[in-house]
Amino acid sequence: MPKDLDLETLRHGTELVKRGFAKMQKGGVVMDVTDPEQAAIAEEAGAVAVMALERVPADIRAQGGVARMSDPTIITQIIDAVTIPVMAKSRIGHFAEAQILQHLGVDMIDESEVLTPADPFFHSYKKDFQVPFVCGATILGEAVRRIAEGAAMMRTKGEAGTGNIIEAVRHRRMVTQGVKRVQTLDDNELRGLAEHYAARYQPLLDAVAKEQGIETLEADVEVFGAFDVGTITKDIESVLVDIRRQGRLPVVDFTAGGIATPADAALMMRMGSDGVFVGSGIFKSGNPQARARAIVEATTHFEDPAIVAEVSKDLGEPMVGKSIDEIPVEQLLAGRGI
Amino acid sequence: MPKDLDLETLRHGTELVKRGFAKMQKGGVVMDVTDPEQAAIAEEAGAVAVMALERVPADIRAQGGVARMSDPTIITQIIDAVTIPVMAKSRIGHFAEAQILQHLGVDMIDESEVLTPADPFFHSYKKDFQVPFVCGATILGEAVRRIAEGAAMMRTKGEAGTGNIIEAVRHRRMVTQGVKRVQTLDDNELRGLAEHYAARYQPLLDAVAKEQGIETLEADVEVFGAFDVGTITKDIESVLVDIRRQGRLPVVDFTAGGIATPADAALMMRMGSDGVFVGSGIFKSGNPQARARAIVEATTHFEDPAIVAEVSKDLGEPMVGKSIDEIPVEQLLAGRGI
Repeated sequence: MPKDLDLETLRHGTELVKRGFAKMQKGGVVMDVTDPEQAAIAEEAGAVAVMALERVPADIRAQGGVARMSDPTIITQIIDAVTIPVMAKSRIGHFAEAQILQHLGVDMIDESEVLTPADPFFHSYKKDFQVPFVCGATILGEAVRRIAEGAAMMRTKGEAGTGNIIEAVRHRRMVTQGVKRVQTLDDNELRGLAEHYAARYQPLLDAVAKEQGIETLEADVEVFGAFDVGTITKDIESVLVDIRRQGRLPVVDFTAGGIATPADAALMMRMGSDGVFVGSGIFKSGNPQARARAIVEATTHFEDPAIVAEVSKDLGEPMVGKSIDEIPVEQLLAGRGI
Repeated sequence: MPKDLDLETLRHGTELVKRGFAKMQKGGVVMDVTDPEQAAIAEEAGAVAVMALERVPADIRAQGGVARMSDPTIITQIIDAVTIPVMAKSRIGHFAEAQILQHLGVDMIDESEVLTPADPFFHSYKKDFQVPFVCGATILGEAVRRIAEGAAMMRTKGEAGTGNIIEAVRHRRMVTQGVKRVQTLDDNELRGLAEHYAARYQPLLDAVAKEQGIETLEADVEVFGAFDVGTITKDIESVLVDIRRQGRLPVVDFTAGGIATPADAALMMRMGSDGVFVGSGIFKSGNPQARARAIVEATTHFEDPAIVAEVSKDLGEPMVGKSIDEIPVEQLLAGRGI
């Protein structure tokens, strides 16, 4: 058997396998959990995967300070507690945290704006990893850059920890309309859009040019990890070609950030989500068990209002939530690392 | 024996010896300590050196006011408490503080933006000292000026006292990209960049010219200590020649400002740091002993995620940290004395 087709390679690491793993989550609910007990509740309720973390987003918001990768001990305990896949979060651009998570054996890494970003210029270069990544996006260009960097799954950013669905809806609509427009492009226009999207990698080079008193820096230099701006532009173009052909993102595309009720989950599925992430919405509510089950049901049967109505009954207090206009701009998550 | 090769000269004071001392810190961790007990913990944990100071940066931030050189008594007590080298901080441009520190016998002076700057125009002229200096930089030009002034070691500024790594990453990337661009320059372009970098010494002359109602002041006048702008421009050019040849700064180059976890230390080492400074990140955490040891291990074995993962377990509460966008601009450290 040739080396690039051995069993290890088939099991891990190729883009195809990484995206294939993500596809297995399709139609499901991924739930934030902070300890083995919550993980057991999530599995019992029918979650397709859990996100292991120290604090749910609502608590991160409330406590402030710098939010970082969780203690590996908690992640390992949660991995041991459930049979479903376990995801965990790294800071944006903190590839050393991502390497730790890969080593711990998590099934997927969420390079997440819910944690404090570590790199003002770049995300981790995800093609350097064997483990698949999920990343957030607010607009199409952001999703395309993350996929070009190797993300195997996307999700909206929303505003995690608010229990407020409005930003997730905004991001879902922005991405969907962005895809529709890509479907109208000819090859030249598509190449132009790829260049426009790749321009987001310029800020470091622009800052160095300014620092050294010159107009611009030649774009085609290595900017981080394994790639240069020329290569990433080609990769972006190839993602756009896939989008034009498929009429959707070429990876599984979930909604996250603000889902708190079965109706929220159903809304996002009807808007074309492949599945949902629920964080603070479950374990900050009055009856996490019942609410977790109800959200799973609503996600599965999103096209049947009768079922969504039925499972919405008697769930107790929902998460209180937070109006987004009350949050200071600098504490909003959506703008982090786009 | 010729006078310039006597034992005293060999031991102290030449640029070669000063840089050689700095090189001995390579691959290591320098830890902020405020008393002999903390110094002992740092030495026990494997620190290559300690930074003796009255208050860690997080407390300087919290308490406000003017931050100055520490009381010599504390510095002397710490020197007596450990066998590893002891560094101490002077204010930017406060060469009288630096002379006191040299007299006290510290092994290295950190001319630091963490203290309140003393001179709005210039840094101390470090070639006038026998003791080696370390200085901070956010961009290449800043690093080059400090080395031309005689710094034997550089570090990023980051934002000390925040537990937030993002600014250290910014400075590391800016310096690295700046070096890459210098490697592409021919001799003429390099001379132009040296002049651009030297222009930073003009503000005093420009202010005097304005005050006296003339266009500009002749640049080639003595501006401070031992040098004039013409000389420093030549020294800057010579540092740039070294950078072009070596593909890196010609002195040891650490990361400081915001390191709070073993993963942070590993990240910065993977980005090309020669070592790290950790301040508030250790003694503002739940378990300083364990965290100090873990950060030393992660700095040594930064290329092995298995070791970094292992030492990251069960470290207790990390430093709470501070989101940088919440800090008023005038309290940010990075812009001090560039």
